[in-house]
Amino acid sequence: MQNTTESAEDRLIARYFRPLAKHPGALGLGDDAAVLTPPEGCDLVLTTDGVIAGVHFFADDAPDMVARKALRMNLSDLAAKGAKPLGFLLSVALPAATDEAWIAAFAAGIGEDAERYGLPLLGGDTDRTPGPTSVSIAAFGAVPRGKMVRRSTAKPGDSIIVTGTIGDAALGVLLRRDAKLAARWRLTEAFAAYLQQRYLLPQPRNALAEAVQQHASAAMDISDGFAGDLAKLCRASKVAAEIDVGRVPLSDAARAVVAADAAAMETALTGGDDYEIVLTLAPDKLAPFRDAAKRAGVAVTEVGRIAAGEGARFLRDGKALAFARASFSHF
Amino acid sequence: MQNTTESAEDRLIARYFRPLAKHPGALGLGDDAAVLTPPEGCDLVLTTDGVIAGVHFFADDAPDMVARKALRMNLSDLAAKGAKPLGFLLSVALPAATDEAWIAAFAAGIGEDAERYGLPLLGGDTDRTPGPTSVSIAAFGAVPRGKMVRRSTAKPGDSIIVTGTIGDAALGVLLRRDAKLAARWRLTEAFAAYLQQRYLLPQPRNALAEAVQQHASAAMDISDGFAGDLAKLCRASKVAAEIDVGRVPLSDAARAVVAADAAAMETALTGGDDYEIVLTLAPDKLAPFRDAAKRAGVAVTEVGRIAAGEGARFLRDGKALAFARASFSHF
Repeated sequence: MQNTTESAEDRLIARYFRPLAKHPGALGLGDDAAVLTPPEGCDLVLTTDGVIAGVHFFADDAPDMVARKALRMNLSDLAAKGAKPLGFLLSVALPAATDEAWIAAFAAGIGEDAERYGLPLLGGDTDRTPGPTSVSIAAFGAVPRGKMVRRSTAKPGDSIIVTGTIGDAALGVLLRRDAKLAARWRLTEAFAAYLQQRYLLPQPRNALAEAVQQHASAAMDISDGFAGDLAKLCRASKVAAEIDVGRVPLSDAARAVVAADAAAMETALTGGDDYEIVLTLAPDKLAPFRDAAKRAGVAVTEVGRIAAGEGARFLRDGKALAFARASFSHF
Repeated sequence: MQNTTESAEDRLIARYFRPLAKHPGALGLGDDAAVLTPPEGCDLVLTTDGVIAGVHFFADDAPDMVARKALRMNLSDLAAKGAKPLGFLLSVALPAATDEAWIAAFAAGIGEDAERYGLPLLGGDTDRTPGPTSVSIAAFGAVPRGKMVRRSTAKPGDSIIVTGTIGDAALGVLLRRDAKLAARWRLTEAFAAYLQQRYLLPQPRNALAEAVQQHASAAMDISDGFAGDLAKLCRASKVAAEIDVGRVPLSDAARAVVAADAAAMETALTGGDDYEIVLTLAPDKLAPFRDAAKRAGVAVTEVGRIAAGEGARFLRDGKALAFARASFSHF
């Protein structure tokens, strides 16, 4: 027989994903595996994260946004570890009813962000599923040998820094679920759109990765809520943290929400999907880190201090806040 | 507040998966990412593959078998590329109704094979899903720099070799779906069990990886059916293949099936889930490869030859077979 049959999966990959696989190690997605020569003197940083329709995104979210969010969740982990992006593997499970336009837009979104962040597609796996659309990504980065920034190495006396603004995505998802909230919060259309966009499309801080690698004593990405994630960093480092709630950076939109509904501050501090970085700095590193952040164009704010002890305390006017729920979990 | 809350996901990971994360680079699954120092002078080989309940396995399959199959599918890719295992990332999506006993058995199965094949768990991601149980694995291996064995480098005159036996899993899955087939095929209980076991639990040929790396001109793992996968290798290498069907190695159980139902030979040659390796060898490599395979304890069989031209031809008594369907696809 002349065996020239290609499966539906082969055709799909060839049409939409192969054009994205420009890295020579991807071998045009035409082999069992990809090949990557690790940079000299480096360690590899390996992370995996994914999204499932109805759990991490809304089934009617635009497919390019779904793709970009999935990729950016992984990029955010690399940034928080101080790693330079090397590449990623993409697993996609699609319901049989998925139309080609969805797949085309999804692939275009992945391709756009792969270019933007310099994280090339190296390989993947595509399957049909009787369940919801699912995307799982494994991403790889590089750090100088022995220099990956961990959660477990914060020291008493270190400053606590966060990037960007906190809580936008947590407020954005509430707006997405209940359109009437915008009126209750007296939000302009622009503010409501801004918060929802922050949920839909994270802004991972990869521009800051080198500065994190060079200066941070510890770091992690904020994905399950600032309060809960900081508590994890404290547990891992066997230290306590004191946060001055008044210094936690809020966007103008989030500030408008909190002005209308003071209880929203708890949502901002404990909700998920920030994809910012919380990091700690020894006192002598504060100035050079600020300079590097300025050069990278990433806003950074000192919000508190690491102390001996345990637990993360959020202080407002000297009093500790008590949260009903410290952390967000999809599980 | 004292923030000591852990999510259900955190507890699950701590209880069942953290004990498997013995590699120092896994950081006890307690960080955003894993860290891995690549071996000197090596390239990384990166692959991803997964399974979905109802697509790649039966929902009532034993959870440790599901886990081991998912891992072994990836191990088989590493073996076919001549790579030494380095580690893997595990993504699991579980329906809310999954009981802890399932998770415990799944984790035990993954842990057992991670030990057996020297492929340590480096990190992962656990989520609840409204859909079926899904497992996605990204696996990493190492080859000497520039030496990953590809699909695209077979040359006319090369011998074509397959490992193990072909078609067992394809026959096994038919038995699994229709218990009456065992009687129609006049199979002993042991033969029927053997074929089903070959479907349930692949035997990846990682013991042969070094020999493949040192001797093969091209290789790929056989996962979507021998005929279809060989056709892919031919397309990638821009060559033709001629297979002597009489030399394709069958297990005693598969031979019994073919004796009862000659048409089953097509199923054996085109069905999926073999997880054997097809490789090509320049004439002077045949003897040293056979020696190395003997030392590795892996059966290898010469089944044909690469020629100029295109397409994979399966010859029986000099006549080419025509298959209704060359390749298996879950998609």
